Amino acid sequence: MSVDDRVEQLREEAARAGLDAVLVTSPPSIFYLTGLDAEPMERLYAVAVTARGGALIVPALDREGGEKAPTGLDVVDYQASSDGFPELSGVLGNARTVGVEEDHLQFARARRLQASGSELRDAGALVMGLRERKDAAELDAIRHACTVVVDAMERMFAGLRVGDVEREVNARIAFELASAGATDSHPLILFGPNASLPHGTPGGRELAPGDVVCADVSARIGGYWADLTRCATVGPASDWAQRTWAVVRDAQAAATAAARVGATAQDVDAAQRAIVEAAPELGACLHGAGHAMGVEIHEPPYLVPGRDTPLAAGNVLTIEPGLYAEGTGGIRLEDDIAVTEGDPVLLSDMPLELREIPA
Amino acid sequence: MSVDDRVEQLREEAARAGLDAVLVTSPPSIFYLTGLDAEPMERLYAVAVTARGGALIVPALDREGGEKAPTGLDVVDYQASSDGFPELSGVLGNARTVGVEEDHLQFARARRLQASGSELRDAGALVMGLRERKDAAELDAIRHACTVVVDAMERMFAGLRVGDVEREVNARIAFELASAGATDSHPLILFGPNASLPHGTPGGRELAPGDVVCADVSARIGGYWADLTRCATVGPASDWAQRTWAVVRDAQAAATAAARVGATAQDVDAAQRAIVEAAPELGACLHGAGHAMGVEIHEPPYLVPGRDTPLAAGNVLTIEPGLYAEGTGGIRLEDDIAVTEGDPVLLSDMPLELREIPA
Repeated sequence: MSVDDRVEQLREEAARAGLDAVLVTSPPSIFYLTGLDAEPMERLYAVAVTARGGALIVPALDREGGEKAPTGLDVVDYQASSDGFPELSGVLGNARTVGVEEDHLQFARARRLQASGSELRDAGALVMGLRERKDAAELDAIRHACTVVVDAMERMFAGLRVGDVEREVNARIAFELASAGATDSHPLILFGPNASLPHGTPGGRELAPGDVVCADVSARIGGYWADLTRCATVGPASDWAQRTWAVVRDAQAAATAAARVGATAQDVDAAQRAIVEAAPELGACLHGAGHAMGVEIHEPPYLVPGRDTPLAAGNVLTIEPGLYAEGTGGIRLEDDIAVTEGDPVLLSDMPLELREIPA
Repeated sequence: MSVDDRVEQLREEAARAGLDAVLVTSPPSIFYLTGLDAEPMERLYAVAVTARGGALIVPALDREGGEKAPTGLDVVDYQASSDGFPELSGVLGNARTVGVEEDHLQFARARRLQASGSELRDAGALVMGLRERKDAAELDAIRHACTVVVDAMERMFAGLRVGDVEREVNARIAFELASAGATDSHPLILFGPNASLPHGTPGGRELAPGDVVCADVSARIGGYWADLTRCATVGPASDWAQRTWAVVRDAQAAATAAARVGATAQDVDAAQRAIVEAAPELGACLHGAGHAMGVEIHEPPYLVPGRDTPLAAGNVLTIEPGLYAEGTGGIRLEDDIAVTEGDPVLLSDMPLELREIPA
């Protein structure tokens, strides 16, 4: 589906929802609807879709970028002396009931729109409703992104040696990913006890015999993300590492099998949680089963307890259970899958094995 | 000033402003007040400061990170089954008038707080009022970040050769910066006509004789950013490049000289604009004179027309005029300065010269 087809679908959905216009302000949604990769910082970037028109609104310094984007929308720019609101008002015209991405729009901008007479409704679900059902071309883009990440991870594991510095290993794979065309990446490769923090920060630790390595590597290639995690030990795996890896592998298989049309987000989480929480002697379960992914690295639905969002064909999900033992390390296994009308389809292709780095 | 001193200052400012509490949700402000580098994605991270208490609120998966941060605040965590609001309510207690960062807080979260009885007021200026006056230790941190960026840029320029690929040159300097301890970086090194886009995206272009190179490199080291731009030509500089560089250099000097206590943000912009806009035959003026910088790469005040914010001692500003000629390229010169009670102080130290790469 072309970006303009997506805008047309959004226009139709907005009309059905009784909205006069939809205002899209989050960079991933702007990319989805126009192909423009916006980096707004403090500046307003927006896609405004009205009943019969609409525009891509950008600061003047990005006019050329807007015009190069594969969108059929008019590109409306504003000078540095404007905050973009007069130009936005011009595009919105008489639209009164305006759908906004409530989870992204700044409160200050919302107040501003309300003060100028707009009645704001949440249209985040309308936009995500389009974004979350990936078509065949999008699944191919994610598959391709996965191959790039897998190549970089395999080279990283093959080259890893005792004495390597955590921060440099992360910097090197970011470089390799960028050289391979990634426009963004979030490598999070942690050594030993640091790996017990699912969101730790790579630092000066040198890889040491006996360390577990938890390597979570994500990158955006061709507009779409891939996100995988694999683990290794330096020298033969300890009893803890072997047992934990096996539990996490079983949890990942169970969660993947649960990711079907008819199930909900929390069902997928429950499938992994039942398995990892049954092994408290190995570590703690610190996060849900995963999240959706596409033009953004984290998208709803989030696979956590209490989320009863039904899964739909075309959802792309990370499945990434883990177990974390403070002072020892953590083991997580993560793959990217597509929900279909039938069985879940694996988009990432990398052996799950617990790798062994020479001690 | 310690992070806890900053919290105490914020508490005093909030009381003076008649607020029962301040809720801080932007990652740079959270870092400023606690030392925690939060990566919230969709999750709530917050610092709530009440009249007598307060807390750092984090998802359970980041509890250890919160506890390691150099904050004296209590760390309150919430499980994946919560969205953090019940825990936040517990911390806010009876606070009714709550200051929020209106330019950051999501509209959805604002609505949620309002629905639970909070009356929201904008406290963005309170928080930025603290952040924007850097103390001596912060100026030293920025000076240090500048030396790291300058080293990386000098090595990049020294190694640049015809045939180098734009994307790879950017990836390599990001790697070097990360290896040198940068926790984030935004290199934007553009070749030839690509350099006519101040916010272009590095791609597959190979460096060719006659190209101008516009190298804007920023990185965060020790929590603080540095942001510099220098230019080069491949082979001897064309008449356009020489003349444009001289105009931009004069504009930078004029804007720097204007950055004094008693002047406003727009005065600094006007000083550069008068010079670059007097040379329309060389290119277009596509952006303001610069922006403030600190724990965040772009902070207010922004040096653009219409911003009458008075400058204060301790402001750290980028001064970065440029001229952009479609089809030819762009020249920008950027340094980081501190506003003082006396003359502006240069924090970055790198020759301004238009470098020459062997053709």
